[in-house]
Amino acid sequence: MSGVVPPPEAPARSAGIARYLPILDWGRRYTGDMLVSDLVAALIVTIMLIPQSLAYAMLAGLPPEAGLYASILPLVAYALFGSSRALAVGPVAVVSLMTASALAGLGPLSLDDKLAAALTLAGMSGVMLMVLGLVRGGFLANFLSHPVIAGFITASGILIAASQMKHIFGIRAEGENLVGLAGSLAAHIGETNPITLAIGVGATAFLFWVRKGLKPLLMRIGMRPRLADLSAKAGPVAAVALTSLLAWAFDLGTLGVRLVGAVPQGLPPLTLPSFSPDLMLALAGPAALISVIGFVESVSVAQTLAARKRQKVEPDQELLGLGAANIAASLTGGYPVTGGFARSVVNFDAGAETPAAGVFTAIGILAAALLLTPLLATLPQATLAATIIVAVLSLVDLSILKRAWAYSRADFVAVAATILVTLGLGVEIGVSTGVALSLLIHLYKTSRPHMAVVGQVPGTEHFRNVLRHDVVTDERILSVRIDESLYFANARYLEDSLCALVAERPALTDVILIGTAINDIDLSALESLEVVNDRLKARKVRLHLSEIKGPVMDRLRGTDFLAHLSGEVFLSHYQAVERLGGRLVGPPLTAAQ
Amino acid sequence: MSGVVPPPEAPARSAGIARYLPILDWGRRYTGDMLVSDLVAALIVTIMLIPQSLAYAMLAGLPPEAGLYASILPLVAYALFGSSRALAVGPVAVVSLMTASALAGLGPLSLDDKLAAALTLAGMSGVMLMVLGLVRGGFLANFLSHPVIAGFITASGILIAASQMKHIFGIRAEGENLVGLAGSLAAHIGETNPITLAIGVGATAFLFWVRKGLKPLLMRIGMRPRLADLSAKAGPVAAVALTSLLAWAFDLGTLGVRLVGAVPQGLPPLTLPSFSPDLMLALAGPAALISVIGFVESVSVAQTLAARKRQKVEPDQELLGLGAANIAASLTGGYPVTGGFARSVVNFDAGAETPAAGVFTAIGILAAALLLTPLLATLPQATLAATIIVAVLSLVDLSILKRAWAYSRADFVAVAATILVTLGLGVEIGVSTGVALSLLIHLYKTSRPHMAVVGQVPGTEHFRNVLRHDVVTDERILSVRIDESLYFANARYLEDSLCALVAERPALTDVILIGTAINDIDLSALESLEVVNDRLKARKVRLHLSEIKGPVMDRLRGTDFLAHLSGEVFLSHYQAVERLGGRLVGPPLTAAQ
Repeated sequence: MSGVVPPPEAPARSAGIARYLPILDWGRRYTGDMLVSDLVAALIVTIMLIPQSLAYAMLAGLPPEAGLYASILPLVAYALFGSSRALAVGPVAVVSLMTASALAGLGPLSLDDKLAAALTLAGMSGVMLMVLGLVRGGFLANFLSHPVIAGFITASGILIAASQMKHIFGIRAEGENLVGLAGSLAAHIGETNPITLAIGVGATAFLFWVRKGLKPLLMRIGMRPRLADLSAKAGPVAAVALTSLLAWAFDLGTLGVRLVGAVPQGLPPLTLPSFSPDLMLALAGPAALISVIGFVESVSVAQTLAARKRQKVEPDQELLGLGAANIAASLTGGYPVTGGFARSVVNFDAGAETPAAGVFTAIGILAAALLLTPLLATLPQATLAATIIVAVLSLVDLSILKRAWAYSRADFVAVAATILVTLGLGVEIGVSTGVALSLLIHLYKTSRPHMAVVGQVPGTEHFRNVLRHDVVTDERILSVRIDESLYFANARYLEDSLCALVAERPALTDVILIGTAINDIDLSALESLEVVNDRLKARKVRLHLSEIKGPVMDRLRGTDFLAHLSGEVFLSHYQAVERLGGRLVGPPLTAAQ
Repeated sequence: MSGVVPPPEAPARSAGIARYLPILDWGRRYTGDMLVSDLVAALIVTIMLIPQSLAYAMLAGLPPEAGLYASILPLVAYALFGSSRALAVGPVAVVSLMTASALAGLGPLSLDDKLAAALTLAGMSGVMLMVLGLVRGGFLANFLSHPVIAGFITASGILIAASQMKHIFGIRAEGENLVGLAGSLAAHIGETNPITLAIGVGATAFLFWVRKGLKPLLMRIGMRPRLADLSAKAGPVAAVALTSLLAWAFDLGTLGVRLVGAVPQGLPPLTLPSFSPDLMLALAGPAALISVIGFVESVSVAQTLAARKRQKVEPDQELLGLGAANIAASLTGGYPVTGGFARSVVNFDAGAETPAAGVFTAIGILAAALLLTPLLATLPQATLAATIIVAVLSLVDLSILKRAWAYSRADFVAVAATILVTLGLGVEIGVSTGVALSLLIHLYKTSRPHMAVVGQVPGTEHFRNVLRHDVVTDERILSVRIDESLYFANARYLEDSLCALVAERPALTDVILIGTAINDIDLSALESLEVVNDRLKARKVRLHLSEIKGPVMDRLRGTDFLAHLSGEVFLSHYQAVERLGGRLVGPPLTAAQ
């Protein structure tokens, strides 16, 4: 195939509606082996998901069954529409925290109103994701820079852990940010329930040990590494079972230990979100943020796992999958869901081959909702808090601050601001600040592009920056290379700096703009070029262009700019300099200059 | 000076506080000739400004004296701090419309509350401009693209003309956008006052004739062109005098013709804006928009005029000048002001040499406030409306739509949306939409950068796009040129497209990224490059870089990316290809491929 670049392989794209239903693709090729793999993975994910779904519902400020319900139909919906083979969908920590924050933003609500608002939030988020997917708007997620996401996730992890401390101590405390939480905890610390504290600290220590120490132990007694690894994932279930039993045996509820209490037993309810315009208006911002954050997190996990198996994840299809999952959540008593990192990795490691594993997980959770809920009545809330704390501390990674500082101050400012604002003022304003700052920094950087006055490397056709190289120039010709696309944010700077360069050079007759790094010229920049052309013309200086790229030249040809241009357009800069004067004079620059 | 580029001429920059007071610079060199020029220009601008200041105050929904007061101390403040020699500051059409819109956004107000809110708006705008100037934030104005500004000004002109129709017909009508205004006008058209209509239409026709027909007439009777031109500027004053006389003589007020009524006679009052937090919060957005729009309009005029005399305008100093003017407005019974286009051109053409002309204009307006206000009592509002309509129709220029369409669909979308939203929903949301859309379009464009697979032009060291040129490639080496800086908005696209290119080429052993058009790599993009490096390594494909620019390379050297890079960094792409295989084989591409 040398010399010939083939067109990208056309994938066997299904036509019509099938295009939006990946299940029609993998479903046709489903085998018995796949079924076994998917069932095993589903069993392990189910065991992991039961305590998580209860815990994250508590984090979101919702009753535990909302977590279970959010782990049933949404998983089936994702299996139908999603493009990842390994993504495990359901309630996740960061989105649960954002849900709590969105609901708190509505003011004090009754539990029924809270549940209704959670449904609306999930429904709006689902519709937003679906619409984005249909208009192929997945690129919007790119506006979240890696450092901003890393900072946001880290700050969210800290906030989540802090928000669970009240359950560990068995006290009441409220707050949407670290300052509020810390103040509230300090105010109520005297009301600590010692038994709750013992359970909370015990469960936390146990879960940390399961995470770090259990696997080596199991391997030492002869278990295979992979099985040991997966067994360790059952730690939270063990903690839940043990502490529930303890609380039941000693009737800890009567001693002031807060328990989960009655959880309805049965199928998820069919629900309709509220369509109140006021509520929808109030939730529009949070729903948009939850959608974007959930999507970015989910698609990163999906892509990482897909790459390991040389599979592909379609971001726009993922929007449809997650949108369907959230709409399903809003119709069955759930709250916003997305793809979870830890759980997807477990699903992948346990051998999940297709999204059918998600359907089997949903069946597992359904069985739990039908059969196990009575057992949850005596589950201490402190155990769930311990589960959350141990899970989210793996999200906290402050090293991003160090890396960003070492690489660029601009990136550091964006990360540091995201972390500080999230911790200090809350999740919504935190992530918005991060996005806005990254955009502003990008615009600021590109609004003052690097411009180099270049001269000829003696004896060659090459031109280099006069400040960095020994080159020769002609006092009548100014050669300027602009290292940036020209667009509205730098159009005025272009005018100012070109005119300033010209004003310093009284003998000048010709200015040549070199376009090697100009990938685009928008209408603002074109108008600025016209202004520059006119101003130079008034000073009897001609403006020329050289080495303009094909697509940019195509666009300029459609305007009358080239007709008004006082100078010419040259294919190569060497040609331009040869033609315009040729007499390159003067001693080469010394290094010091 | 060949071969040597001198540093920019260091201007005689004053030290300390003097740096912020350009008056200390030009004031020292003030001569008698300059005084005469400035006095003549001031006289002409004063004659032009009296009717304008009354009319624009009416447009802003304020009593006429607010316009006079806004044309006194603010002009002196600008003369102290501003850097333009010719800019004439005061109430202008677009900012008056935005003021009306901001005040309407507060709900129904008493006249006193309205005046207080206008002071607060001017004060906040003044402080914002000053702060921006002190932090050298003038670059923020660059985020308004030329087409968006052009669209916004055009739509504002139409809105302003429409808003004045009620005065021409002598009826009541309200509305913040074209739909509302048209509906309200239609509902009240039956209440038209025929005398008012006669005055309005007559004055409008007269002013159009003055603008188009008076100058040729005066020249035909022997007047010099420049004097004829300036005399025509007195048209509005003549219209004001004539119709006031008419209204007084025939006591038109008793016939239902709405007149300006009693205007207080005397010095501008000393006022303090309201510091109510609620009011300030409600006005923060409008104040920011008024500041930016006012600044952009003003600085464009100032720069255009300065360029004609080879003078320079400092955008950051202009922020200080306009900020001081607005703070002065808020302390002396005015409302937001900025540099006016028509009036600055008149000032310049009439020979203004220094900002002292502004001070003399202020004295002229002060004299009018002291002496002429009783004469304004019988001035018909329809005359002022006619003045506004004739003035703003010169702002309306729909050709920007045609130019944008011809040049690029993206620019067209931004302009069309700005115009439609401004007309349909109002000025604040209109300009915000324009800014947001331009940013989104820029991000979208740069989020999918042009990437070219290149091959070698046979017999040369040059490499060109395989799709556009007859070049040779090696099936083991993929050379990719990315025509864009790498940053968060395109980092993920970079991962996806590089991996897709590699997936299509089974024989590949080496990928070379060519950095000629990469002006920056931010931390997100660096992490994406690390991901690409790892993914390729897993496929046993090495990643190399070539022709990376100096500043980008400097930054990469500070990281461990180069240590992890599976391949090498080459200074020239030719070196890279020579070194990595050299065996360039295969037939050249035919044009059809």
